[in-house]
Order: sequence, then structure tokens, then C-alpha cells
Amino acid sequence: MLETIRIEQKILGQNEEYAARNRRRLDEAGVFTVVLSGSPGGGKTSLLERALPLMPPDLRPGVVEGDIETALDGKRIAALGVPVTQVVTGGTCHLEAGMIEKALDHLDLQALDVLFLENVGNLVCPAAYALGESIRVIVLSTTEGEDKPLKYPAMFRKADALIINKVDLLPYLSVDLAAAEAYARQVKPDLPVFRTSCVTGEGIEEWIAWLSELRQSWKQASSRT
Amino acid sequence: MLETIRIEQKILGQNEEYAARNRRRLDEAGVFTVVLSGSPGGGKTSLLERALPLMPPDLRPGVVEGDIETALDGKRIAALGVPVTQVVTGGTCHLEAGMIEKALDHLDLQALDVLFLENVGNLVCPAAYALGESIRVIVLSTTEGEDKPLKYPAMFRKADALIINKVDLLPYLSVDLAAAEAYARQVKPDLPVFRTSCVTGEGIEEWIAWLSELRQSWKQASSRT
Repeated sequence: MLETIRIEQKILGQNEEYAARNRRRLDEAGVFTVVLSGSPGGGKTSLLERALPLMPPDLRPGVVEGDIETALDGKRIAALGVPVTQVVTGGTCHLEAGMIEKALDHLDLQALDVLFLENVGNLVCPAAYALGESIRVIVLSTTEGEDKPLKYPAMFRKADALIINKVDLLPYLSVDLAAAEAYARQVKPDLPVFRTSCVTGEGIEEWIAWLSELRQSWKQASSRT
Repeated sequence: MLETIRIEQKILGQNEEYAARNRRRLDEAGVFTVVLSGSPGGGKTSLLERALPLMPPDLRPGVVEGDIETALDGKRIAALGVPVTQVVTGGTCHLEAGMIEKALDHLDLQALDVLFLENVGNLVCPAAYALGESIRVIVLSTTEGEDKPLKYPAMFRKADALIINKVDLLPYLSVDLAAAEAYARQVKPDLPVFRTSCVTGEGIEEWIAWLSELRQSWKQASSRT
């Protein structure tokens, strides 16, 4: 087993190097980068479809879509006229920094202010792989129940915000969202939480405003250094 | 990278050995074993909570619960008076055959006819790990959308049945279930599909009847060999 652990550390170590390189490249281009992760079908792509057309002029977006197979999500983003690159991992259960490096070659970073990296739908493995991002946002659907932060703590511990999506379904569910938020903050104190619906649009503008403000502080901090 | 692949093959090879050993042990005890997999929050535990009390007398059930953290699911099953062992993987994103071997030591196999192994919520990694099971059942929630079989094909390719759960939410969703089934059968032709709701109980008895019949054929086949 020791051998296995050494190999894993080597892979993760290589990934960290690629991630640091991506981060430098994105910082130099002034691109604030947001990883979106969550379970399959939690609404990550739908959230982007709702949010991208509402971005303010100083938050010109781009997207990298990560999927094991198909370019279905990439096509949905391209239909909005937003620059997008689809990464097909071909079996790998998470995005890796080396994949992102190649994806960045296909984007005009100078034309972007914010880049969303939508990870493979998976509430476990993406936690271990830095991609070069500025922040991580986790998308949880109301239909997944309140106990997920306790059962999948690593992802929540590494998140900078939690989006609880599909709140339009609340009248038909027995989920306790206050408990979900409390569990998430038990794992990651002070985690900002947004409640959204891609059907009604609820919460989308609040999330964009938060992103916009965070990007502003990030830009000011990086111009000082 | 070659080194990595060799290690992975070694891990998977070891897992296959453990799985074969579990299978012999379960076969000898006459225990039909069903792996339940699917995304986090798709309703795997709720499905068991609904189905276990309805099992016929010749289908005495037991459960192994797999979670990264917490024994929440194990407690839900224990509350029904059904024998259950909780495996906490401590970070690992899937059950492995070695974990099941240890879990079997805690169950009285002679008192069981069917054993459910509920995997970690993950639509990717569990596909690669045999556990010693007789069949694999995948649970997909209506809320996850119709495209999952195309985006996560390995899990569907290895499934012996698909349960589309949470059909009670259909009036509030824009999902196309006929497309979901067609995509699943594109990946795995003739895949049996059940539509269930743990709120209304719809489809649960049909699924149990199918399991019961399959277990009967399995028992007859194994008594002939």
C-alpha cells in the first residue's frame, strides 16, 4: 500500500505544479477563476446558463466544461455566445490541472475577466485536485438532502461558497435547508451560502454580485503585489 | 504515467481477487448480493427503507452501507430491524472488495437470502470495483436530468437494472424520462428500468418482484452447478 500512496503523492505533486503554473498565467491575464463542483445533475450547467447572460460588462465570462464523455454541456454554453472549451476526460472522474493548461490554450484570456471551470459531476474526487483557480464554489441540489456536507466533508471544507440550487422544488420536498447550511458550516465555518433556482432565477443576481465584489477585491490585491 | 497505470492494475487485480473470494463465500451461503450505486442524494437509502419492510419471507435481507464519513445511513437501516454493517471508507470514493470482506464477518450470512451493498454516492469510480456481487443496480433520480447515461457511461454499462427514482417530482421537472431510458439502453441494450417513488411507494413492489424472481433463477442455476 505504501507504494500506492507514494504514486498518489507524486501524481498530486505534479498536479500542484501544473495548478501553480495555471494560476500564474491566469493572474497575469487578470482572469478571476471559479471552479464549480457538485454531484451529477445538481444544476451546474443550468446555473451557468442562467448567470452568464446577466454578467456585468466588467465581468466578461469564459467557461471550461469538464465531462467524462460528450460535449453536451459545452454546446449549451456555446449556444449563449460565451467562449467555451470542452474537456472530455475519457473516464477520469475529475478535472486535473494539466487538462486545464491545454484548455487555456484555446481561450483568449485577454478577452476574459472571469473563467468558470465546471468540474465532472462528483462530490468526492475533485476536492483533491487544484486547477489554478481563485475560488471554489460547490453546487448542492435541494433534492440531495441535508446530510451531504457531513457525508462528503472534503469538498465542503475546500469550498469558498455553497450554492443550494433547485429551491423551486422545496414545496415538494421534506429537506431541511437550515440543517444543510448548519452542517456545511460545521465543516467550513462562515461559508457563504446562496439559495438559487434556475427555473425562477431566484438568487442568481445575488451570486453574481458576490462574485463581482470578490473579483474586485482580488484584482485590487493582485495590483498591490 | 506507465508506472501509475501498473499500480492501478495491481490495485484492481487485488480487488478482483478479493471480489472472487467474497463471491464464493456469498454463493456458498446462498446469499444473492445486489450492489446499489448512484449519485449522492439519488435516494439509495430511502429506496432500501421503503423496500426492506416489504420483502417476502424467502428474501430475508441484510445491508452493508458504504459512506466516506458518518454512520447516518447505517442507523436508518438498523432502525428497521434489518441486519446492517456500516463501512466508513475515510475518504475513499467507492467501496472495495476488501472492505466488504471485513463487513461480511459482522453479518450472519446463514440468516440472509439477499444482501444489499449500498455504495458511496458517486456516478464514476464504483464502476471499476467488483465487490463479489450477483448483480448491480444503478439508482438515478429524475432531478438529475436525462443525459447522465451518456455522460457517465461506465456505470450504466455495468448495470443489470436501472431505477429511476423520485418520479413523484415529475410534475415539477422538465426532464424527459423516455430519453433517459433510451440513452441508458444506448449504453446497455435491454437494461431493465424501474420507475420508483419513495414518497408514494410507486414501483417498489415491482422492483422487489423482479429481484425475487432473479434470485430464484440464480439459486436454481447455482444448485445445478
